[in-house]
Amino acid sequence: MADQDARPTADIESAALPVLRWQEAPGRPAVVLLDQRWLPSAEVELVCADVPALVGAIRTLAVRGAPLLGIAGGYGVALAAARGDDVAEAAHALEQARPTAVNLGYGARRVAGAYAARAGEGADREAAAAAALAEARALHQEDAEASRRMARHGLRLLGELLPGGGHRLLTHCNTGALVSGGEGTAFAVALEAHREGSLRRLWVDETRPLLQGARLTAYEAARNGMPYTLLTDSAAGSLFAAGEVDGVLIGADCIAADGSVANKVGSYPLAVLAKYHHVPFIVVAPTTTVDPGSADGASIVVEQRSAAEVTQFTPARIAGPGSDAVRGSDPAVAPQGAPAYNPAFDITPPELVTAIVTEEGVISPVTGVGLAELCARSSQVTIS
Amino acid sequence: MADQDARPTADIESAALPVLRWQEAPGRPAVVLLDQRWLPSAEVELVCADVPALVGAIRTLAVRGAPLLGIAGGYGVALAAARGDDVAEAAHALEQARPTAVNLGYGARRVAGAYAARAGEGADREAAAAAALAEARALHQEDAEASRRMARHGLRLLGELLPGGGHRLLTHCNTGALVSGGEGTAFAVALEAHREGSLRRLWVDETRPLLQGARLTAYEAARNGMPYTLLTDSAAGSLFAAGEVDGVLIGADCIAADGSVANKVGSYPLAVLAKYHHVPFIVVAPTTTVDPGSADGASIVVEQRSAAEVTQFTPARIAGPGSDAVRGSDPAVAPQGAPAYNPAFDITPPELVTAIVTEEGVISPVTGVGLAELCARSSQVTIS
Repeated sequence: MADQDARPTADIESAALPVLRWQEAPGRPAVVLLDQRWLPSAEVELVCADVPALVGAIRTLAVRGAPLLGIAGGYGVALAAARGDDVAEAAHALEQARPTAVNLGYGARRVAGAYAARAGEGADREAAAAAALAEARALHQEDAEASRRMARHGLRLLGELLPGGGHRLLTHCNTGALVSGGEGTAFAVALEAHREGSLRRLWVDETRPLLQGARLTAYEAARNGMPYTLLTDSAAGSLFAAGEVDGVLIGADCIAADGSVANKVGSYPLAVLAKYHHVPFIVVAPTTTVDPGSADGASIVVEQRSAAEVTQFTPARIAGPGSDAVRGSDPAVAPQGAPAYNPAFDITPPELVTAIVTEEGVISPVTGVGLAELCARSSQVTIS
Repeated sequence: MADQDARPTADIESAALPVLRWQEAPGRPAVVLLDQRWLPSAEVELVCADVPALVGAIRTLAVRGAPLLGIAGGYGVALAAARGDDVAEAAHALEQARPTAVNLGYGARRVAGAYAARAGEGADREAAAAAALAEARALHQEDAEASRRMARHGLRLLGELLPGGGHRLLTHCNTGALVSGGEGTAFAVALEAHREGSLRRLWVDETRPLLQGARLTAYEAARNGMPYTLLTDSAAGSLFAAGEVDGVLIGADCIAADGSVANKVGSYPLAVLAKYHHVPFIVVAPTTTVDPGSADGASIVVEQRSAAEVTQFTPARIAGPGSDAVRGSDPAVAPQGAPAYNPAFDITPPELVTAIVTEEGVISPVTGVGLAELCARSSQVTIS
């Protein structure tokens, strides 16, 4: 059960982004999301009062982005616990909502684990639910702290790789406050560079088909007063050729044990371009994104999404709630019935990744051994 | 002065595409175009009764594609001659309508040359205008013939490079009957392979920002019953990585004397991906696309287009004539005022091009000497 509560963008322009919060109304707990499908036109809150509503929000990308999915998964389990629903079932449903998202399963399992541990100690449902909520909140806080640490590690790495500052950084998809309990992953590094005065330009790939770059990253860059320029994904090539890209900064949805990185489709071509042009290709992700169960890139399950995301445009969601297209009249941009290949992610092998920046430090060159050592330092990954 | 005459798509489904024709009504000559902005939703004819209308149609991409622009430029000059307008001025205006399009200038200059030659022989205006129209018609016919020859040369090249058939070919932008007096350039090669039974799959890049792949190439592929799949431009990377692309076939808007190829933005990243994956990258273009005045890639002027093509979506034109968005309500997909980098083309250097297929034959490897030899065989290029 999800309700919408729209308010004009300007109201909260200067405040922190209300990305995800727990609503503690007596007897009516809920996970309240900023519905990212309406950005940048409107900031609409989506109130998820039960797990099916939250699963729907995850599937339709109302809430998205690897670290934030972990937090959403955690609060989702806490919500099931608070409502008295079956917690294990809720954790399973959340974990299955999107197949590639490692953090989602991590968050759901971690909070379900906290609930089960408390229940196993003989606590009543209410106390176990409180433990679940506390765990979700801890995860949320840890993620905010991980953002800060990734930003610092990333900024130091940029200084080493690109001495002299004046960085022109290219990014893909959205990896800022909208995907995190803090300021994000790759975007947080660019923002830190901006605050330090070393960001000359943030090149923002629009990120087809769902335009997370144009709709979300440009929105976050504008909010933060960063010097940015939007481009179609395939225009990045000529920027590389012209020597206008000093580094690529992207996030990750899943990192395999060998350092292969699954990220938004379009990341791999950027990695090949970066390699060809001798430009650093930097992945920024918390250690919770590492999936030790995936040995290599081939083991990562890549989510295939609907052809309609490619063959139909969705100006409705972009135009704002209440517009015509909400009622299913999205205009086609291709012939009726056109088949489309629409993977959500692609896989970049470790040899194309200059460095992986995590909250625990930086791995460069990227090796499975280096990744395992770094994850061993993280209290988060050893828990799972 | 341009008029629109819309008719439903089904009426002419089975006929040849009415891409561009000369209308010879007494006292009311006109160039009649299939307005490509409305495809695939509707087949709308745009009647250009004077050169400013045609220049507008060229600038707004109602008519587009390198060879077809040459034909349009030629008929445009014939139109000015038939109306009694200043022919040299008309040729200049047409030539300037889009800066990168070599063929446009070629067609306009060639027909203006025929007019001037006839006038120089003492012919009256009417006879000189008739000579101009005859020259435009000759150009149109030659282009159709060039399509057939490119298709044959290209098919033979595919057989040599990819013995065994079952080709899975990736293409970008639109290079079929919609850009040509015949069946096109790169697309015509794929179509020939399809007819011969050796095309397993045509991968069609959607081609942001104006979606010529999704709107036009998918439409042509569907009309021709070809096995095709649409994808976002950046999804091509994972197809290469999965070994699903046997060859890349693209057109060209300008080829410099050294073999550098200017083509729709997004071609260069495909060339880099093709190189990285050891996949042939084949450019198909008539010799009229070669600009001996451009020494190399750096000499080619790349057209920069409006940021609005990236920051606003144009479902109006796609939804069909008469829809709301015609009146300027295109929904934004980025924050208001977002700056965008929007080059129409990028440049692929000769070392990334496996072969250039022209109507006169194939150059591989691509060298300036080879290109010059091949152009010397062409009666068309020596004219200019």
